[in-house]
Amino acid sequence: MNRALVYHGKGDVRVESLPDPAPPDSRGAVVRVEHTAICGSDLHLYHGSLPVPPGFVLGPEFIGEVVETGRDVRSFKSGDRVLVSGVIGCGDCRACAGGHPIRCERHRTRVFGNSLELPGGQAQAVAVPGADAALLRIPDGISREQAVLLTDILPTGYYGAKNADIRPGQSVAVIGLGPVGQCALDCAQLFGPARVFAVDRVPERLAAARAKGAIPIDASSDPLAQIQAATAGQGVDAVIEAVGADETIALSLALVRVAGVVSVVGVNTNMAFPFPMLLALMKDLTFRIGICPVPELWDDLVPLVRSGRLRPESVFTHRMALSQGPEAYALFDSRRDGVMKILLDPDR
Amino acid sequence: MNRALVYHGKGDVRVESLPDPAPPDSRGAVVRVEHTAICGSDLHLYHGSLPVPPGFVLGPEFIGEVVETGRDVRSFKSGDRVLVSGVIGCGDCRACAGGHPIRCERHRTRVFGNSLELPGGQAQAVAVPGADAALLRIPDGISREQAVLLTDILPTGYYGAKNADIRPGQSVAVIGLGPVGQCALDCAQLFGPARVFAVDRVPERLAAARAKGAIPIDASSDPLAQIQAATAGQGVDAVIEAVGADETIALSLALVRVAGVVSVVGVNTNMAFPFPMLLALMKDLTFRIGICPVPELWDDLVPLVRSGRLRPESVFTHRMALSQGPEAYALFDSRRDGVMKILLDPDR
Amino acid sequence: MNRALVYHGKGDVRVESLPDPAPPDSRGAVVRVEHTAICGSDLHLYHGSLPVPPGFVLGPEFIGEVVETGRDVRSFKSGDRVLVSGVIGCGDCRACAGGHPIRCERHRTRVFGNSLELPGGQAQAVAVPGADAALLRIPDGISREQAVLLTDILPTGYYGAKNADIRPGQSVAVIGLGPVGQCALDCAQLFGPARVFAVDRVPERLAAARAKGAIPIDASSDPLAQIQAATAGQGVDAVIEAVGADETIALSLALVRVAGVVSVVGVNTNMAFPFPMLLALMKDLTFRIGICPVPELWDDLVPLVRSGRLRPESVFTHRMALSQGPEAYALFDSRRDGVMKILLDPDR
Amino acid sequence: MNRALVYHGKGDVRVESLPDPAPPDSRGAVVRVEHTAICGSDLHLYHGSLPVPPGFVLGPEFIGEVVETGRDVRSFKSGDRVLVSGVIGCGDCRACAGGHPIRCERHRTRVFGNSLELPGGQAQAVAVPGADAALLRIPDGISREQAVLLTDILPTGYYGAKNADIRPGQSVAVIGLGPVGQCALDCAQLFGPARVFAVDRVPERLAAARAKGAIPIDASSDPLAQIQAATAGQGVDAVIEAVGADETIALSLALVRVAGVVSVVGVNTNMAFPFPMLLALMKDLTFRIGICPVPELWDDLVPLVRSGRLRPESVFTHRMALSQGPEAYALFDSRRDGVMKILLDPDR
Repeated sequence: MNRALVYHGKGDVRVESLPDPAPPDSRGAVVRVEHTAICGSDLHLYHGSLPVPPGFVLGPEFIGEVVETGRDVRSFKSGDRVLVSGVIGCGDCRACAGGHPIRCERHRTRVFGNSLELPGGQAQAVAVPGADAALLRIPDGISREQAVLLTDILPTGYYGAKNADIRPGQSVAVIGLGPVGQCALDCAQLFGPARVFAVDRVPERLAAARAKGAIPIDASSDPLAQIQAATAGQGVDAVIEAVGADETIALSLALVRVAGVVSVVGVNTNMAFPFPMLLALMKDLTFRIGICPVPELWDDLVPLVRSGRLRPESVFTHRMALSQGPEAYALFDSRRDGVMKILLDPDR
Repeated sequence: MNRALVYHGKGDVRVESLPDPAPPDSRGAVVRVEHTAICGSDLHLYHGSLPVPPGFVLGPEFIGEVVETGRDVRSFKSGDRVLVSGVIGCGDCRACAGGHPIRCERHRTRVFGNSLELPGGQAQAVAVPGADAALLRIPDGISREQAVLLTDILPTGYYGAKNADIRPGQSVAVIGLGPVGQCALDCAQLFGPARVFAVDRVPERLAAARAKGAIPIDASSDPLAQIQAATAGQGVDAVIEAVGADETIALSLALVRVAGVVSVVGVNTNMAFPFPMLLALMKDLTFRIGICPVPELWDDLVPLVRSGRLRPESVFTHRMALSQGPEAYALFDSRRDGVMKILLDPDR
Repeated sequence: MNRALVYHGKGDVRVESLPDPAPPDSRGAVVRVEHTAICGSDLHLYHGSLPVPPGFVLGPEFIGEVVETGRDVRSFKSGDRVLVSGVIGCGDCRACAGGHPIRCERHRTRVFGNSLELPGGQAQAVAVPGADAALLRIPDGISREQAVLLTDILPTGYYGAKNADIRPGQSVAVIGLGPVGQCALDCAQLFGPARVFAVDRVPERLAAARAKGAIPIDASSDPLAQIQAATAGQGVDAVIEAVGADETIALSLALVRVAGVVSVVGVNTNMAFPFPMLLALMKDLTFRIGICPVPELWDDLVPLVRSGRLRPESVFTHRMALSQGPEAYALFDSRRDGVMKILLDPDR
Repeated sequence: MNRALVYHGKGDVRVESLPDPAPPDSRGAVVRVEHTAICGSDLHLYHGSLPVPPGFVLGPEFIGEVVETGRDVRSFKSGDRVLVSGVIGCGDCRACAGGHPIRCERHRTRVFGNSLELPGGQAQAVAVPGADAALLRIPDGISREQAVLLTDILPTGYYGAKNADIRPGQSVAVIGLGPVGQCALDCAQLFGPARVFAVDRVPERLAAARAKGAIPIDASSDPLAQIQAATAGQGVDAVIEAVGADETIALSLALVRVAGVVSVVGVNTNMAFPFPMLLALMKDLTFRIGICPVPELWDDLVPLVRSGRLRPESVFTHRMALSQGPEAYALFDSRRDGVMKILLDPDR
């Protein structure tokens, strides 16, 4: 028996019992889930804006114990406690083996709980293809909450910061202070900026950013004007966009200074976003957007979490049972009660 | 008396006699023009797609002799033979002084013959503001044709190549093989690519690219399919776009492989270009567009031209008198007679 | 009358009255000194290991007010409050104008109070050649102590960190925790290391490093063994050497891991340092040593000091009158009383 | 029966018949050698300056056919035609799996025919440990000679060029024009230098460099003076040292300009090389030395060789039978008859 959170339509997530999974093939494994979480990207499905069929199991983030392995799995065995990359490729090509699932030479980049053939981690057990490339033994000194964050959103925030090419002394804006934005803010600090402007509308999120040394900018009252005023009209050297909406990407392009960088880690699926090319031309713009190559960032992030330089676990505001999944989704979607991120316990 | 090519409306360029210019202020100079040229960007004006008023002198590219200097000009004097950056800033702020007119702290980035307050170089004499930052004494070993190209299109081609982050062994596509595209192709070779695909419709331009070691791709017959076939369906690591049309930018975004770079040096003024954000997201895209910071690239380019590693002068296919300006514009616009670039002699 | 600290032989520094300086030439200026300091590099002279003649005025670090300018000084005038780069070049070539005195095309790189023709700043007034390239108006929000540190040791510490190519998540060792080492430690943190090992023998200095989040390593008891133990025998990714002794450079080469970087900012004048080439070969070593190009680092550092991200002023432990100079030198040399760095007031 | 070239003392190489090798363990393979070569580094052994015991098989370079594999070899099988990295690690750690044998986490970096437990490739058959990490299937379009060069000296030359941080327009010196130096020269051109000075004493080698567009500098007549004269006294931006002698490393340090890079790929085993630290300090030096991480460079080099941008095979001047090994060593050591590099055929 495998209890899981299953999508049944817009706003309709149900707790169901599914058959136990088997390793998908000789290189796959089965992971018994110890912890999972609800991710901002899950809301895209919850809102019906990414089409998945009824019956699909949600959730890119999970950690747990290996309980079964295919015969060609080389580096893991039953009993290993692991975290699982939310993003995987074929698991076997040179790019995947080197930790770069985004560059999978077979174009099989997929996200747990997002890509149709890859059911997610909000369950008691999950089948993981290409286990050698997808798993990481949970390192000593990493807590469970931290391990969950290393599967997806901490690497994503770090990727946004890295792609922003921040150099010491520069100014940065982070747009959107949800869980990924908070991680992006923490990670932006790793690159030595003089000032980080943190933009959102939710007071608790702005307060959390302020507590981390950022300058809070209330998005409800003309954030562009506020940041222009604070930068002598120059704008910021780098923008990390962690929302994905058309308006926030447009704001990012307006905020960046000449010769600056806009780095988008929010998910935007518009195939005809109205890009202000003349403005970009005048600004000498670098624009980046991409899916986070989770495993290639672990080498950088694990030591930072272990040493306490990064403390991402503060994003967890709520802990609930998987069986409370529908309530958890509704709460997360509401942004009420100071909810930032919800940890789910699959055995309750 | 100052003979010049003057815009009078779409397709209407006239030879006129204007008053002699004076230094615009104490930091400016007057340059008597020895050579000028017609630039692809001049066609934007000629076609009426960049609005300038009747009576405006055209042309960003010119070299000549300093004949008058304001009292605060420090590094140049009458008699110096100079080339002039097609792009200038205020000429005085720290960014301009360091050779970065695009980052002008007073936001005064301007292009000769394009920006309204800055008449161009298709004339016998031109006023140059901020002379210390705008001029370069023509170095020994640089021919006149080479000097003209160093004012604008060679740096622009180099900037496109540099912004494409090409590493040895990679594959590159250059879209558009006009003068800037030819320079971009030459400059792309400086970064050690294994293969450069050169895309255009004009047979002479494709032949010129082939002679330089590039792989010609006839744009009239599905360039995307041709390049996909040649790259095992992966696309190219880097695209340099040297046209500026919506379709060629769209083609660039289709051609680039995962984790690749699109670098645009064509001029596109669309404020709502339909950008395929989802495609870019899946591709982990870096996209760059900007105006070339001409002076900051001279340190790299002058030694390359002097040593013969770059031979950009082959783009000149025609030499005409400034007094033949209307015919020259018509010829250049027609792309007939194998015309690539026209050198103009202002004293004829 | 110009009271100054004057070198008269090993361990013999005297307070003397010298004639008032004049601008050295038409591009020079005279600065009335508001604050100066004693630098670790002054001890090289004090110990007689860098040969200067009796009568030479010491000190590379000073700030103050411009009181006279040559007629070709462009950007400064009497009354401007300025900090002065401890390192200057000719002040006029393209490299110097761009803020790169180390690359002075006329090979005139010099250090105040170290290079024979350039008397130092431990005085009431100092002649500054090439004022446009050497001075920086003290920015708003920068205190006097901070300004003094921006003339030399903060840029030097930053340069050491920058040259170490530190990436997020790496491990770093800083060898020597005197004033420059403390600045290097602060600046290393700007690059996001997971761990910084701070190596010295002086308990107060180790305690200061610990308070900044570093891991103190007592150099008296086998620092190599301690750091090997803490890094699973791999060594550290980057070493910043801030002493300059043969033994500490040798230690740095032993501490660094394969494919790591050793960045030396200590001053070592050995023309036959016994370099372990085979070890370096096996380690795939990058080794850097150089004089800090002070002005080119101000753009990065000023915003960091202004925003409070860097607080280097904590290195000042003592404040004394210039007339107490001999006592100040003796104290600084003794390393007693917790002395780290001494600010001198020239008007007392 | 396995015919091989065996070391028996200084200048004493013999053809002997040895037992057929077996895979060293479950992850190893046996390669039947199709071609091997004599490498400049073999001369270190031939001259007795690297100690190996009598009976040791020489040669880091070989290609051939897989004839046997251990049961845990994943990516290769009998019949595969492969080239073999001259440098390997444990073959199993994360660094080795990612193609970085130099960073082997178990510190097992070894060179075929140089490291005692790893007999070389001048034989009819060779045991290859860690086959998955050490082998590369010979790509289509790569000739046998090219494949042999990809095992060691072409990557080494490329590594030297890459470590020199050459940017377009710079000046470079290559010291030593033996086979590795010729490869380094070819690879330096991939980074767009304006000028490459090629330094050696052997006329044929200088002529070969000139034919490739380099400026030949005869090392017999004060190369420092010649290069200073050609660079207006500045020196070169980058030096690639491909000899390894103390004198040529010292020359490299003298030749490099301020803020330049010296990249050593010659083998120097001096544990007390007299390093001119004061000179390096004044020059703001970056110095690199290391063993080439062969497999991590294949991705860059294979496309360059396939497309004909690199044509390294011109280094082969002689082709001999393995059974002529003693004569081949003597010839190679003599540098007579225009010998540059000797290809050996093991079946003759």
